[in-house]
Amino acid sequence: VNWINGVRADTVDARDRGLHYGDGVFTTLRVHAGAPLLLERHLDRLARDCVQLGIAPPDRDVLRGEATRACVGAERAVLKIIVTRGVGGRGYRAPETPAPTRLVQRFPWPDYKEEYWTRGVRLRVCATRLGENEALAGAKHLNRLEQVLARAEWSDPHIAEGVTCNRSGEAIETTAGNLFAVHGSKVSTPSLARCGVRGVMRGVVIDLAQRLGLGVAERTLSVEELLRADEVFITNSVIGIWPVCVLEAASYVANTTARRLQHALAEYEPGYA
Amino acid sequence: VNWINGVRADTVDARDRGLHYGDGVFTTLRVHAGAPLLLERHLDRLARDCVQLGIAPPDRDVLRGEATRACVGAERAVLKIIVTRGVGGRGYRAPETPAPTRLVQRFPWPDYKEEYWTRGVRLRVCATRLGENEALAGAKHLNRLEQVLARAEWSDPHIAEGVTCNRSGEAIETTAGNLFAVHGSKVSTPSLARCGVRGVMRGVVIDLAQRLGLGVAERTLSVEELLRADEVFITNSVIGIWPVCVLEAASYVANTTARRLQHALAEYEPGYA
Repeated sequence: VNWINGVRADTVDARDRGLHYGDGVFTTLRVHAGAPLLLERHLDRLARDCVQLGIAPPDRDVLRGEATRACVGAERAVLKIIVTRGVGGRGYRAPETPAPTRLVQRFPWPDYKEEYWTRGVRLRVCATRLGENEALAGAKHLNRLEQVLARAEWSDPHIAEGVTCNRSGEAIETTAGNLFAVHGSKVSTPSLARCGVRGVMRGVVIDLAQRLGLGVAERTLSVEELLRADEVFITNSVIGIWPVCVLEAASYVANTTARRLQHALAEYEPGYA
Repeated sequence: VNWINGVRADTVDARDRGLHYGDGVFTTLRVHAGAPLLLERHLDRLARDCVQLGIAPPDRDVLRGEATRACVGAERAVLKIIVTRGVGGRGYRAPETPAPTRLVQRFPWPDYKEEYWTRGVRLRVCATRLGENEALAGAKHLNRLEQVLARAEWSDPHIAEGVTCNRSGEAIETTAGNLFAVHGSKVSTPSLARCGVRGVMRGVVIDLAQRLGLGVAERTLSVEELLRADEVFITNSVIGIWPVCVLEAASYVANTTARRLQHALAEYEPGYA
């Protein structure tokens, strides 16, 4: 089900800059009991990412209303909100006063296996590398070819996600989520200063870890360090927190930290219970 | 005027992967006397770029027919052909058998000043850098946010184009064209192994230079080298070849090589005369 600028519609203008240049941003959230979870945080991120690209952020109340209405009646679903710079002639230069396009889409719930949450998921390391650009880093923009190429590397349904690395081979994230590692009592997550998406759930987990008295270090994290970690887990706003049980040749038996954070998340937002 | 999969239509499916991920490629060509110029070369590039991204290239005869029909009756125009991976659910993973979308769009001729072709254009150097990724380099794909951000850096109508550099500060291209420099009798153009778009006109100019007995070296080209070159010129399939008269503090009086190549281009394809 799609709404474009608040109106039910299944097509977008063929001149939209989102299609021509990937000139826009998006966010994806979990719908539970007819409501979008963590909506204010998602509205924050949309606004922040728009500003990063120089797009005038849509009115927050309008977007909140459209997102909320789109979830009515949906027990469990996924909501995706796209904001593009709007329709705009030929050429990279934006119109003087562009009118951003708002696209709200509701998708059926993917029905992930319960064991992904409890026992964990299997991951691989992708060969596709992430280019680096401080001007785009952190934003969830519509230029996602690297993720498409990385996701095309495997079709084994037992592998839930792939770790993507920068050109130096340092782990950055997964194709659709963020990455955390635990070594002893230390929790760390890759720095996203040069590439990667600053996920809403990543921010929530960093906040929750702090409340639990665990610091999270944002730092360079090599694949080697991931492989010899005590625990690895991944996050995004749809899945919440998934422990990792296997990454390439490494397997992880502990998931104490992921478990603690899952409990904290379920308390913070019961829709993730 | 827009055609989608051969049918007149002004909107595309809101689930198209071109919009969601920039998951597609495009090419832009000059229309002259009712016909698209260098069409076979553009069809080659679309097919090659599709293969680079793992998209099944559309039938060449179908695409040729659609492009040709779209130009009928247009004395001068610009034609843009987009091929996306098609409509495809939620998530980066492509459907098992995606049906690529073909979007053919005709735009009015931009009416460039005659002096751009004769005396040349003014250029600036953009601050926005190009990220590097061998998997995407060379292809004219739909992930064009870097070009959008670079083009947003200036609004002075006297500046026609901006030079974009990689993270090391080496010149790669302009926001919408390729770059050539002449030092003495040596012509060079930046290597596009890690970033940049392998333009159709760039290929034509390299071929023409060869026929004229001028080699073109594809190599690393610093901004310093551009500034102290005897000549600089830029190319794309809409403009053809434009000499550069000013780049930042540097000005160029010679345009002998650009002039020779313009003549050779007009002989090769009279639509560029």
